[in-house]
Amino acid sequence: MAKSQNKSKAVILLSGGLDSATTLAIASAEGFECYALSFDYGQKQKSELKSAAKIAKNFGVLEHKIMQIALSDFGGSALTDKNIEVPVFKKSAEIPITYVPARNTIFLSFALAWAEVLACQNIFIGVNALDYSGYPDCRQDYISAFEAMANLATKQAVSGQKLSILTPLIKLNKAQIIQKGITLKVDYSITTSCYQADENGLACGFCDACEYRKSGFKSAKIPDPTHYK
Amino acid sequence: MAKSQNKSKAVILLSGGLDSATTLAIASAEGFECYALSFDYGQKQKSELKSAAKIAKNFGVLEHKIMQIALSDFGGSALTDKNIEVPVFKKSAEIPITYVPARNTIFLSFALAWAEVLACQNIFIGVNALDYSGYPDCRQDYISAFEAMANLATKQAVSGQKLSILTPLIKLNKAQIIQKGITLKVDYSITTSCYQADENGLACGFCDACEYRKSGFKSAKIPDPTHYK
Repeated sequence: MAKSQNKSKAVILLSGGLDSATTLAIASAEGFECYALSFDYGQKQKSELKSAAKIAKNFGVLEHKIMQIALSDFGGSALTDKNIEVPVFKKSAEIPITYVPARNTIFLSFALAWAEVLACQNIFIGVNALDYSGYPDCRQDYISAFEAMANLATKQAVSGQKLSILTPLIKLNKAQIIQKGITLKVDYSITTSCYQADENGLACGFCDACEYRKSGFKSAKIPDPTHYK
Repeated sequence: MAKSQNKSKAVILLSGGLDSATTLAIASAEGFECYALSFDYGQKQKSELKSAAKIAKNFGVLEHKIMQIALSDFGGSALTDKNIEVPVFKKSAEIPITYVPARNTIFLSFALAWAEVLACQNIFIGVNALDYSGYPDCRQDYISAFEAMANLATKQAVSGQKLSILTPLIKLNKAQIIQKGITLKVDYSITTSCYQADENGLACGFCDACEYRKSGFKSAKIPDPTHYK
């Protein structure tokens, strides 16, 4: 994790899943004033947004914004395109069809805008590059390049108030993330990871996100609190 | 201008102003299949979106998308915040209050997403760093950093299909941009530059955007077709 430059405020990208909940818990434990940012981006399952609201409340964020952005207008992903089915988990070197084009770049860009308006120099994102689906925008190289770009992009940055993108989970596997979260009192029963959770938040149990989550609880030797269909 | 890598498709950021209209004309003249992307981002004046639609039609783009994104939820700019007035033009080294936090980063991020879905490797943006308001996200350094980040961000890029951000206006002053556009048959009478144009597209004549535009036509010795209030 890069060294943070301002202890006061942080914008936390909060999807409502296991990783972002843990990230918020870490930011909160480190003493940041937390502003949570979620996106209704045309994802097929909206349960994660209900989860995000509950998690934000549990950790007492100063504000939780849910931005509406219609990435489904572009399509091209099993998570946003009605014509593409969410596949069953399969170990593979290929980036799966659940990849959403430029999603983290768009999410981080909005976080950058909000951070500047808040005079905030810290953005947290819960990417991790061990138990993940190989999405290019979850790797440290990408995050570092975004940070470099961001520090040329804004009035705040060119005035000398540099921005840090903080990725506390980047080197943790799923079991370690869960163990970390448990020590920080994350209630994983209210998080939603499944790519096709139903409206009650019940998980399918066989998509990539479910598979990584299930294996994580198993490896961590912690009972899986996920509600399956 | 960076060398383009794929002559077939390009996404063009089209605000409806003088610069983006000229940029679309250049991309079209270079033989690209053009996809125009505009944003209803909570800007106070929406006339530019009507202009964008007319310009897109004139140049026969394959598709024109207008994305809805509520940057006004963040505020912090005279262009989106009802509580901040658009100032009269004043020559200054300071970045004016018309700066919109992270705007070009957000716009380019959406362009990146659409480009990937289209299997397109070229994005055009009409930034210029001579007759401009000093916005940090209009400079070549920033654009190069965005391009570097983008080439780590997407499945397309990491598969070897590199993306180029093309900035054909970056070294032109406003008069040169207008002269270039005239040779490419841009109808500047349908473009909207004013930060507070009314619903009929009539310009105020005294904001930064009006000032740079007026001076540009004067220097280019071309009659100014702008309709003022």
